[in-house]
Amino acid sequence: MARASKKQITHFIFDVDGVFTTGQFLYTASGKFAKVFGAHDADGIKLIRSHVEICAVSADRRGFAITKKRIEKDMGIPLHLVSEGDRFSWLEKKFDLDACAYMGDGMHDAPILARVAYGIAPANAFYLAKKAANYITQAKGGEGAVAEACLHVIKKFFT
Amino acid sequence: MARASKKQITHFIFDVDGVFTTGQFLYTASGKFAKVFGAHDADGIKLIRSHVEICAVSADRRGFAITKKRIEKDMGIPLHLVSEGDRFSWLEKKFDLDACAYMGDGMHDAPILARVAYGIAPANAFYLAKKAANYITQAKGGEGAVAEACLHVIKKFFT
Amino acid sequence: MARASKKQITHFIFDVDGVFTTGQFLYTASGKFAKVFGAHDADGIKLIRSHVEICAVSADRRGFAITKKRIEKDMGIPLHLVSEGDRFSWLEKKFDLDACAYMGDGMHDAPILARVAYGIAPANAFYLAKKAANYITQAKGGEGAVAEACLHVIKKFFT
Amino acid sequence: MARASKKQITHFIFDVDGVFTTGQFLYTASGKFAKVFGAHDADGIKLIRSHVEICAVSADRRGFAITKKRIEKDMGIPLHLVSEGDRFSWLEKKFDLDACAYMGDGMHDAPILARVAYGIAPANAFYLAKKAANYITQAKGGEGAVAEACLHVIKKFFT
Repeated sequence: MARASKKQITHFIFDVDGVFTTGQFLYTASGKFAKVFGAHDADGIKLIRSHVEICAVSADRRGFAITKKRIEKDMGIPLHLVSEGDRFSWLEKKFDLDACAYMGDGMHDAPILARVAYGIAPANAFYLAKKAANYITQAKGGEGAVAEACLHVIKKFFT
Repeated sequence: MARASKKQITHFIFDVDGVFTTGQFLYTASGKFAKVFGAHDADGIKLIRSHVEICAVSADRRGFAITKKRIEKDMGIPLHLVSEGDRFSWLEKKFDLDACAYMGDGMHDAPILARVAYGIAPANAFYLAKKAANYITQAKGGEGAVAEACLHVIKKFFT
Repeated sequence: MARASKKQITHFIFDVDGVFTTGQFLYTASGKFAKVFGAHDADGIKLIRSHVEICAVSADRRGFAITKKRIEKDMGIPLHLVSEGDRFSWLEKKFDLDACAYMGDGMHDAPILARVAYGIAPANAFYLAKKAANYITQAKGGEGAVAEACLHVIKKFFT
Repeated sequence: MARASKKQITHFIFDVDGVFTTGQFLYTASGKFAKVFGAHDADGIKLIRSHVEICAVSADRRGFAITKKRIEKDMGIPLHLVSEGDRFSWLEKKFDLDACAYMGDGMHDAPILARVAYGIAPANAFYLAKKAANYITQAKGGEGAVAEACLHVIKKFFT
């Protein structure tokens, strides 16, 4: 598997649920009510932004208004709703994956993590995603995994 | 204890609380408000559906509207409200337990797990349920236990 | 320290927060909104009731309506609001502590746990409470600690 | 690094998110809805108050109304909204840092923890904060970290 050498990373693409969040959601009788976002990640995102372009993808249609409020409106990260089955081909068309870092936690993220220049999985990722990743953060999603990944990418590719 | 050999599994029956959820519920002064559902499970359910019929049972009368919204309306899994004391006999009448996989986490699930063709308990199950199960997932309920169980059953009985 | 021998236990008194709950509460801008109750405990309470009288005490004035809804209205356990500073003397007046089991997790529970016939702390208890207890459950509060304690007391004192 | 000897501690300053809370927040489609505060901390705060002056700082503008309700209105701890970038200089102007204990969990807390007389990080702190601290609590934020820190400071500096 050919992997990027230093300085080839121009984009960092993030899955949201289980990466920025614990992966969990609170359901009431009316449906999906809330997601659990965590500490530190906003700090890491501020630092990585001077090095690469960032964006986020989510397949969660029912929780998209929650995700959009946090990720796009409050954190300022461009967010795309793409179903998990379409994600790989959507990313391939939109980005040069040899220049992308990608962070994801689900079973559908595994082939993407294996394909991009640098794949990162949070500690709580599904085991197939962990297997396919170049790097697994010590922190879980919603507990600083994004911050840790940002500092790791800066150290590895930009210093 | 006679157990099913390969390909005898035609149904996979799931307890909900502590299996699809963390087992926890948020109480406000008005009562049960929300349950915590998790990542990965919808992906696993999609995969298992081409192999077996699935359904879910819950004894949680007060939280049934929450459970119904998530499990039946949003995930499309037939859901039955059956008290824990009646569950075993209800299952026996409705299903051929020698052809059923069952996943549950509570003390009342223990005799069911011991009786069905293949019993699975999540990592967070009450110790009596774990003792009675054929397989214990590494993941906890609400953290991917159902997804892990689905992939395990597919691998064990359908490949 | 003189401790009760078999069959002397007539009452089982429970602290609520950190015992029936994770100890955590959700705060909104309007104040205490919800507490996190867990699995299995209702099953354990049903079993212990045929052996001893049970009641619960809470010092949480701001969250009392939440606690009352869950513990007293929905689970049917008599609940008393007693400040932590007054708890020991209140219990001494109301009960024969040599015939009581008590379960608590806080620093103010430590002297009570040391005084009663049988003191139990959940895995998440403050370290002073754990030191003073006769038994520490493997489960944390809100994750089955009460159920485990009930089965333990039944096994130890009533079989 | 010169550090305070016994009895020089006159103030104990606390970061809020990740210290009094789990660091997590519940987002709904309307924005930040709730934070998760935990057990034991109010007990620890009551004890430390007879020894030092306490106050809290938060950089969380969007969640400030939640923080203010819990920390200032309900617990009676003076609370200041100070951005993370300004925190160090703001603290330097307002306090004699050689007489301050400080507890924080974020990457921006690291230089403060290294500078004050006594720096404490909760178990869940970002690794840079842990490296800079004199003491790391066994408990996580929202699970008794503040209570543990208060008892530790009392034992170390006031007995």
